[in-house]
Amino acid sequence: MKRLILKFGGTSVGTIEKIKKVANIIKKRHQEGNEIIVVVSAMSGETDALTEKSSLISKNFDSKELDVLLASGEQVSSSLLSASIIDLGLQARSWMGWQVPIVTDNNYSSSQIIKIKTKEILNFISSKGIAVIAGFQGISNENRITTLGRGGSDLSAVALAKFFDTDSCEIYTDVEGVFTTDPSIHNKVKKIEKISYEEMLEMSSLGAKVMQPQSVQAAMMDDIPIHVRSTFTEKTGTKITSESEIDYKKSVTGIAYSKNNAKVSIVGVIDKPGVAADVFEPIGKNNINVDMVIQNTSLDGKTANITFTIRQEDLRKTLNIIEKNKEKLNYNKITHDDKLAKVSIIGAGMIASPGVTYKMFRSLANEKINILAISTSEIKISVLINENLTQKAVKTLHKTFDLN
Amino acid sequence: MKRLILKFGGTSVGTIEKIKKVANIIKKRHQEGNEIIVVVSAMSGETDALTEKSSLISKNFDSKELDVLLASGEQVSSSLLSASIIDLGLQARSWMGWQVPIVTDNNYSSSQIIKIKTKEILNFISSKGIAVIAGFQGISNENRITTLGRGGSDLSAVALAKFFDTDSCEIYTDVEGVFTTDPSIHNKVKKIEKISYEEMLEMSSLGAKVMQPQSVQAAMMDDIPIHVRSTFTEKTGTKITSESEIDYKKSVTGIAYSKNNAKVSIVGVIDKPGVAADVFEPIGKNNINVDMVIQNTSLDGKTANITFTIRQEDLRKTLNIIEKNKEKLNYNKITHDDKLAKVSIIGAGMIASPGVTYKMFRSLANEKINILAISTSEIKISVLINENLTQKAVKTLHKTFDLN
Repeated sequence: MKRLILKFGGTSVGTIEKIKKVANIIKKRHQEGNEIIVVVSAMSGETDALTEKSSLISKNFDSKELDVLLASGEQVSSSLLSASIIDLGLQARSWMGWQVPIVTDNNYSSSQIIKIKTKEILNFISSKGIAVIAGFQGISNENRITTLGRGGSDLSAVALAKFFDTDSCEIYTDVEGVFTTDPSIHNKVKKIEKISYEEMLEMSSLGAKVMQPQSVQAAMMDDIPIHVRSTFTEKTGTKITSESEIDYKKSVTGIAYSKNNAKVSIVGVIDKPGVAADVFEPIGKNNINVDMVIQNTSLDGKTANITFTIRQEDLRKTLNIIEKNKEKLNYNKITHDDKLAKVSIIGAGMIASPGVTYKMFRSLANEKINILAISTSEIKISVLINENLTQKAVKTLHKTFDLN
Repeated sequence: MKRLILKFGGTSVGTIEKIKKVANIIKKRHQEGNEIIVVVSAMSGETDALTEKSSLISKNFDSKELDVLLASGEQVSSSLLSASIIDLGLQARSWMGWQVPIVTDNNYSSSQIIKIKTKEILNFISSKGIAVIAGFQGISNENRITTLGRGGSDLSAVALAKFFDTDSCEIYTDVEGVFTTDPSIHNKVKKIEKISYEEMLEMSSLGAKVMQPQSVQAAMMDDIPIHVRSTFTEKTGTKITSESEIDYKKSVTGIAYSKNNAKVSIVGVIDKPGVAADVFEPIGKNNINVDMVIQNTSLDGKTANITFTIRQEDLRKTLNIIEKNKEKLNYNKITHDDKLAKVSIIGAGMIASPGVTYKMFRSLANEKINILAISTSEIKISVLINENLTQKAVKTLHKTFDLN
């Protein structure tokens, strides 16, 4: 007998019909002889609708009350799903975060799970009951409802897999798994059978929307294998696991991209300790997220050029901040570009393949795609290009690295 | 300093704008120097929308899960209202039933409140906090969410008034109070300043929708004075209190009516002990609600005629049940009428006014309104008439008893 976490996302329970379909999937997995703990998100659109209500009340809606508000979404879906399972003749019961309890810290609206009590649910599932747990929510030591932040139901699933020591953590969603690149921009994609946590982290940070980066990271930390699969087919999906479990045949596992990037270059900054901190401190304090950072020393060895990327909508604000600090930063000039895309090749196998960098740049050059900036990590090479060349770049890289 | 319960119904918090208006009312009452405990219903339409979802999942939706589902409605409204009060610069906090806790029995979907813990909330309100409590919900000794049945937020308000020993329990709603009769059928109605629990019970059983009969009864049992008033004006509303607090100047306090009645007469039943039980037992077991019951002995003294009223939609079923039991009941024949209305004059003052009955019948006779059945209690006289004469009857009685 195996113990499984089955997590269903918002699109999987987006309508009454879909909830009934999910109940049938659960019934089938139960009849296979498994102990089942279900985690469920709010019906798709619900969390947005509640957030909209809160913003009409106040732009500074109290964060503790926001958690009370948003947690109602999973309360609705978990009760509907439990009753739907009961209607199929099985024993089921919903648990809110406070009932389990899933104990979190007091950082309302972005809480971290501290511990999960297992006794009552273990009793229930060992006597054939199906436990349906409202995702995304917990309870603080002040006896108040907390939530884990956006995508938090994946975090709930990973934490429950850890505390209940399950054999598998299956994330049911509206796609069949993780693909070699975004299927909406290239029709020759393939489903990835196995991907490492690290690769998945890079993919999801770059917009592969299958799992939130935080939940991939949580799974990595406790080495919880994840199986991402579709609610709407019976096919096996993608397994996210540790690198040691993967037999790398290819240097590159997937291609990711993100649009809406802007690039800022500060030219001729005096090259002395602390200059990078002077540049990025005021930007960070204004809640602007900086992505790539590249620093070159100039020819004379006395000044440096600092280039970084941000989201396009933050460009104006960022330029203002830098200009306000001109005296302190003591730079020569600022240049900037917007409408840029970041395209990345990702693969834990590239460490053992020295030719990857060269192949990437040559392949883009052959398509006359100009590279505006480069940054690399052990399992990723990213280049910044013009946004309107994104699809062309992804397609050519997909072919170059044998992913078609 | 006074301690107040302020209860706001679904129409009072039906939109974001209305929630903000309610927050301002609460602020005003708080600034007057009162300790405030708010009870709030789900936004109007929400409970119906959730019930609709449950019925699409299953006609036999699990009652425990139904309570989880429906309780989410008050979770939403209580968090929105709390945040709206905080936005006005005051200290506020929402409490779900399980957080207070409001402990109920285990009769899911129609639970009764057993006890309410007061310490935490007393601390909060005594240090200027405004406690906002989700109405309609509680928690069972199995640690599961319960609900109090339809209109349950009024019951929550009355129970909180009792356990918190408040000076006043104000029910804010979309009408200005209780009127001498239904304003939608007569334009000469007057607001009743004070009405006894007993009178209010009779009025609300007969369709005055201001308060559910169960909550009036609960208030009566613990002698909790209620003030029903409008969210949308500042006028005083109607005070519901014990008879001893009222100085009766008039014999009749109000006129109530209910449409959609049907009448069934069983003629010539052998008049022996147990016959009434034989008639009503199978009807009751089929969940048909019997209202008026009148039994006359026939002229020969051996047989009786039993007449009773039911809701029109139950007529066919009721006749079938009686015909199925013809042998046992041993009656002569059945007659029936549908499209009837029950019109009642209600007043604790009528005990001291012997002419009331006669005046009622004469006034109807003058309007050529035929009376099909009569039943009386100490504070009410009801007559059954043709439904299309309802308005005429109400108007003439309203005038006869000086209510214009």
